[in-house]
Amino acid sequence: METSNHPKIIEQLNTYHPGMNLSEQYQYVRNYSVEICEPLQREDYVVQPVVDVSPPKWHLAHCTWFWEEFILAKYQHGYTRFHPRYSFLFNSYYNAVGDRVLRLHRGNMSRPTVDEILAYRLYVDQHMMEFLKTIPDEVKELVELGLNHEQQHQELLVTDIKYILGHNPLFSTYRTDFQETSLNETDHAFLDIKEDIYTIGYSGSGFSFDNEHRQHKMYLNNFSIRKSLVTNGEYLQFIEAGGYHNPQYWHTDGWTWVQEHKIDAPLYWYLMDGKWNRYAMSGLESIDPLEPVTHVSFYEAYAFAEWKKMRLPTEFEWEAASTHLDWGKRWEHTNSAYLPYPGFAKADGAIGEYNGKFMINQMVLRGASVVTPTGHSRNTYRNFFQPNLRWQFTGIRLCKK
Amino acid sequence: METSNHPKIIEQLNTYHPGMNLSEQYQYVRNYSVEICEPLQREDYVVQPVVDVSPPKWHLAHCTWFWEEFILAKYQHGYTRFHPRYSFLFNSYYNAVGDRVLRLHRGNMSRPTVDEILAYRLYVDQHMMEFLKTIPDEVKELVELGLNHEQQHQELLVTDIKYILGHNPLFSTYRTDFQETSLNETDHAFLDIKEDIYTIGYSGSGFSFDNEHRQHKMYLNNFSIRKSLVTNGEYLQFIEAGGYHNPQYWHTDGWTWVQEHKIDAPLYWYLMDGKWNRYAMSGLESIDPLEPVTHVSFYEAYAFAEWKKMRLPTEFEWEAASTHLDWGKRWEHTNSAYLPYPGFAKADGAIGEYNGKFMINQMVLRGASVVTPTGHSRNTYRNFFQPNLRWQFTGIRLCKK
Amino acid sequence: METSNHPKIIEQLNTYHPGMNLSEQYQYVRNYSVEICEPLQREDYVVQPVVDVSPPKWHLAHCTWFWEEFILAKYQHGYTRFHPRYSFLFNSYYNAVGDRVLRLHRGNMSRPTVDEILAYRLYVDQHMMEFLKTIPDEVKELVELGLNHEQQHQELLVTDIKYILGHNPLFSTYRTDFQETSLNETDHAFLDIKEDIYTIGYSGSGFSFDNEHRQHKMYLNNFSIRKSLVTNGEYLQFIEAGGYHNPQYWHTDGWTWVQEHKIDAPLYWYLMDGKWNRYAMSGLESIDPLEPVTHVSFYEAYAFAEWKKMRLPTEFEWEAASTHLDWGKRWEHTNSAYLPYPGFAKADGAIGEYNGKFMINQMVLRGASVVTPTGHSRNTYRNFFQPNLRWQFTGIRLCKK
Amino acid sequence: METSNHPKIIEQLNTYHPGMNLSEQYQYVRNYSVEICEPLQREDYVVQPVVDVSPPKWHLAHCTWFWEEFILAKYQHGYTRFHPRYSFLFNSYYNAVGDRVLRLHRGNMSRPTVDEILAYRLYVDQHMMEFLKTIPDEVKELVELGLNHEQQHQELLVTDIKYILGHNPLFSTYRTDFQETSLNETDHAFLDIKEDIYTIGYSGSGFSFDNEHRQHKMYLNNFSIRKSLVTNGEYLQFIEAGGYHNPQYWHTDGWTWVQEHKIDAPLYWYLMDGKWNRYAMSGLESIDPLEPVTHVSFYEAYAFAEWKKMRLPTEFEWEAASTHLDWGKRWEHTNSAYLPYPGFAKADGAIGEYNGKFMINQMVLRGASVVTPTGHSRNTYRNFFQPNLRWQFTGIRLCKK
Repeated sequence: METSNHPKIIEQLNTYHPGMNLSEQYQYVRNYSVEICEPLQREDYVVQPVVDVSPPKWHLAHCTWFWEEFILAKYQHGYTRFHPRYSFLFNSYYNAVGDRVLRLHRGNMSRPTVDEILAYRLYVDQHMMEFLKTIPDEVKELVELGLNHEQQHQELLVTDIKYILGHNPLFSTYRTDFQETSLNETDHAFLDIKEDIYTIGYSGSGFSFDNEHRQHKMYLNNFSIRKSLVTNGEYLQFIEAGGYHNPQYWHTDGWTWVQEHKIDAPLYWYLMDGKWNRYAMSGLESIDPLEPVTHVSFYEAYAFAEWKKMRLPTEFEWEAASTHLDWGKRWEHTNSAYLPYPGFAKADGAIGEYNGKFMINQMVLRGASVVTPTGHSRNTYRNFFQPNLRWQFTGIRLCKK
Repeated sequence: METSNHPKIIEQLNTYHPGMNLSEQYQYVRNYSVEICEPLQREDYVVQPVVDVSPPKWHLAHCTWFWEEFILAKYQHGYTRFHPRYSFLFNSYYNAVGDRVLRLHRGNMSRPTVDEILAYRLYVDQHMMEFLKTIPDEVKELVELGLNHEQQHQELLVTDIKYILGHNPLFSTYRTDFQETSLNETDHAFLDIKEDIYTIGYSGSGFSFDNEHRQHKMYLNNFSIRKSLVTNGEYLQFIEAGGYHNPQYWHTDGWTWVQEHKIDAPLYWYLMDGKWNRYAMSGLESIDPLEPVTHVSFYEAYAFAEWKKMRLPTEFEWEAASTHLDWGKRWEHTNSAYLPYPGFAKADGAIGEYNGKFMINQMVLRGASVVTPTGHSRNTYRNFFQPNLRWQFTGIRLCKK
Repeated sequence: METSNHPKIIEQLNTYHPGMNLSEQYQYVRNYSVEICEPLQREDYVVQPVVDVSPPKWHLAHCTWFWEEFILAKYQHGYTRFHPRYSFLFNSYYNAVGDRVLRLHRGNMSRPTVDEILAYRLYVDQHMMEFLKTIPDEVKELVELGLNHEQQHQELLVTDIKYILGHNPLFSTYRTDFQETSLNETDHAFLDIKEDIYTIGYSGSGFSFDNEHRQHKMYLNNFSIRKSLVTNGEYLQFIEAGGYHNPQYWHTDGWTWVQEHKIDAPLYWYLMDGKWNRYAMSGLESIDPLEPVTHVSFYEAYAFAEWKKMRLPTEFEWEAASTHLDWGKRWEHTNSAYLPYPGFAKADGAIGEYNGKFMINQMVLRGASVVTPTGHSRNTYRNFFQPNLRWQFTGIRLCKK
Repeated sequence: METSNHPKIIEQLNTYHPGMNLSEQYQYVRNYSVEICEPLQREDYVVQPVVDVSPPKWHLAHCTWFWEEFILAKYQHGYTRFHPRYSFLFNSYYNAVGDRVLRLHRGNMSRPTVDEILAYRLYVDQHMMEFLKTIPDEVKELVELGLNHEQQHQELLVTDIKYILGHNPLFSTYRTDFQETSLNETDHAFLDIKEDIYTIGYSGSGFSFDNEHRQHKMYLNNFSIRKSLVTNGEYLQFIEAGGYHNPQYWHTDGWTWVQEHKIDAPLYWYLMDGKWNRYAMSGLESIDPLEPVTHVSFYEAYAFAEWKKMRLPTEFEWEAASTHLDWGKRWEHTNSAYLPYPGFAKADGAIGEYNGKFMINQMVLRGASVVTPTGHSRNTYRNFFQPNLRWQFTGIRLCKK
């Protein structure tokens, strides 16, 4: 298994490493969620400006609910839930567990307060730390899933905070020392990968998600893949060449999306006095042409590649080439739909809902981003979003035949 | 002019009286807005669960914006605005003043924070107190308008807080000592009012809104009006008689509304274990059959009256009868559309937008409610809402010919 | 009672006169519905381009359904309905009569065909003619209602046909000899009407709708009303003065409507090569500045009057002045909401739904239009529409105090 | 290349065979479009009950527009278009060709009439027949594309007519002799296909679409595929087992779709007096348990397979197994997203829009249906629809590993 060797920008907040024992891992992961929110004002925890962005306090509570619902309530004898209504309030998608607050309405809920949710976290953490001392072997895998689940929400916490601050006319700063980009993209050479049968999917002994299983063979043709990500400068050329105004580069659905939402630049780009600026977590800044273009949808990535007379890689090509790439800065769009691997099997019970039920209408992204928790991703990791979404730290890698 | 002699439940918070001088009035009114929010958690200030309900922190800021925009920026020489973007953020409807944040998006704005808004209030109050010392005579009327504007928002603050807490599954309490009803409705006798020419509209020397002018003559036929408001017990009979399932009692638009939103009871009524409860600002309580039914829309008030084979009064009938009524507990639905009086004239400039531009698609409510600031209403006061809205403390008074 | 003395343009098609006996009236009215459709192609009978416009074949069937449902099925002993499903298909709003096809879906129904509907008409007409020979006295009023109901649909037939042809890029002609305007509007003088008690509402012995009852007294102040309708030329000045781009002239709801629908001229006006044309039933024509402006909504009429620093009359002012006016060319917007007169009472049963249930969210129009069937209107007649609708032959008459 | 050997039910209407010369093929294909519409009433040609269903007269005109726009206007010297506005009216998706009438509004267009469209067809056919006599070699491929394009619309014509008649409460018959199913599904055995490298995609010399190119290698694991399609009887068991009420079988998006649209059975199934009936083109009939279940969406096919603890085949598995299957009765859902094959290249110009721009948000269906024109499909043919659509003659084939 190959993991990203790209240095994490927010490493200082994130000292998790897989060598820790389960209790240490639990504490680190749980603390990191709270640390991410540390620069927030109380008001920032509450809002949900669009349906895909959840209030930070909801993330803090929902991750806690996962531990309470799937571990403590099931395996800790005599456990009393912190609050009888929280199970209803903080379920996200798990239909099998019972009713849930509509995703749409999370931002209408001022209660429970942040303090109440922090008390909920404390209560659950104390019980979990106790439980982990004598954890039965058969529950360990579920704890690992819980840690990875919380890490997924940590990335969402950062991207949702960015959305909340970046869509407010005051453009407040998250942390002035937060660097979204460490290195420029300069090596535009292409790697040639040879036609062959490749092995795809996870087969190691560490944690992995069900959607990375089972390892299987794929026949790939010759292809070439670019070492660098597409830069702001290159993307600006696409804009200036009228890319957003020419339907020939776009999928029909992408073109409808561009026109309905009057899209004319990546998310967080603002044209001010004739110059492009972008909101970053350190504040409003002018566009740096050498940085990787970020916060583009699949539709935009596809249209850009069409304009370049190139294409996006499939997720299988990406995985086959990954050991040669410096990945980990941006989630990289692929031209693969999110579908089950041959022999994919869902787990029993509510946990079985984890991935399989999303395997329609979404596209796969590969790699990791600057805000992915260290150690969370790997070169077999399959991230997935609808083709119009842009609020993750996404980027574009070109491919040609 | 007749004012409500109904004792205010939240009198203790509300010691405003018209005998004060302008500076005293200003201080009292301004303080009262903050006092209303005193029981809130910081999170409660932020949310906007439906478009008609504004976040409490928005109300606090918007009222302040009114003083800054219409008084200080215009009449205080050399005044510097507290923040260059607030004028954009806290404009509500005043199209003539410039762009504004869409009402729909107020609940997406975590910044400015409550603390920043309180600092904004302090800054504006200091300048206003200075300004009021030497206020030119021609600005006094505008200050009175500002005070009445803030009082209108004080009532909205209470009703919006009720909506925020009352639509959260945790049903938190605002104040346990908050009484929504002081007296039962028991005297169901009807007053007979004689056919005659009546004088309608305000003609006194105190403050009044432009929509109460000009006083004019109306020819009214004989009618009878009930002394008591319709009670919860009476309304329950309507529910149990299938009132919400029989189109014959409803306007076509009302029937569509009932079916689309699956309405089957007043707002805040919840059927639990076969018994009706209602959320009050002191918490969840069982229905008291002798209290006035509250939080009903015009559509419901009309349908109830149809079912009773009676009708709602017109606003003119209400005004003619008002000196005989114990009004002031609930805003009372009338069967009058909100339209200009003969000779109605709008003020010049942005202030001219105050009332006239809403004179379409709304119905008039008369009286005052338990949460109307003392001294704010009078028997010529014209309140107005769309016929489907229910979050105000509305009630039903029956009329027959 | 005063009726319009304005010569009908389509008089030739419309030889109805009140002196006929009931059978003659029935035949004339029924024939006229079919004559209106005579210039149509079969395809034109089917479509419903917006929800307010019904397919012509639906009108032909619905009017027939009225006779079958309210007369034959009730009063003709042993009557067999033409088709068991038509009662469901051609009910419009009469909730008390049973389920009905949603208004929204009328244009999806290719069957029954026009021929089948004409057979349905024939069948019902034969039974009606038989029935009318020995009609009981107590049913005569209902027959008169049925005739007036069909006349209302005759006007809608014409306006709906205009919409269907006028919103198709081929701009087909209805009849080349169809004149929408006979006389120019030239006398812009104002009539002065004196403050007094006026009598409003119908009290004659002919047919009238329930909404015109009961006659009652109204106190009106002095006002002045213009003899001529507002012309295209005057309206063009409003457009050229930026009337559609300045919120100060508009109701809030009107301004929202203008912006959402990008309204910038009356319905059927098309700017071609820098010149305004309008679709008329005789084809596409350039704007004649002396004709009355037509197909404007209440919102536009109000904004135009604001821009002129005048106002629209109330429906009571209009009625008081009507004997002095040459009305009948256009339905004239008033600033009165559609509400019951004092003592208004609904009829029993489904017929009781006729008018009362629409008495919310609509504004009154007075007069008659070039396509109102002769004899159908009178100076107490109350027409009503939502304030955004424009497909009727509406016009503007100015008032000032 | 393998083609369906399933006898076509509507063979009698469809005597096309590939041995004909181009002129003969053109005449047969063009005539067949008109023949499909022969049982229609004029009114049936006009309506568009949902956005995916186009009016039959639109299909007749749009196919004609293709010949005029892509052949005659380009290659026939001095050709004069039949009507200057038709190019605008009958463009479907070809953004590169110019503006087009929104798909949503096709059903609002009563003009041109059916007769006018038939005249348009005649005019274009006469010019095409002349043109085909001396057709340059390089245009022949485009003519073949035009024939296949019209055949695609012939299938849509039938399915759209079924939708129009089957969603009208009168349930009119298309043709009483129209059989939707010729043979029962009885052989539920599974074929075992061995793990190997398979060749996927078209490589023959006949016509094929760009999306079937280029032929390439795929590594497939062992799998088993059922000989018969899923039957109505089996599907009824799924319904009776609560399949539509249990989220565990559904994709999240599928579950949302089921709940929003209250789906509880295949399209055209109606529960009448406790018994399931279905609308077929020969009229309303009771469900035959041995017929293949039809008119199910991808969401339903997936949920059914989950409930059976099996799965749908991928399109590659289907193609590898196809020579062993009796396909051609129903379009068979696969669990493959519609994506480009390796090396896929779009044609230049507007024709390049044919397939590539739809390669997002759609799933592949393989095979052919009872209403696919003879000779139109083959075992490499890739049909595609959004996962919620049901109006095509779709079916379910099960797979297991």
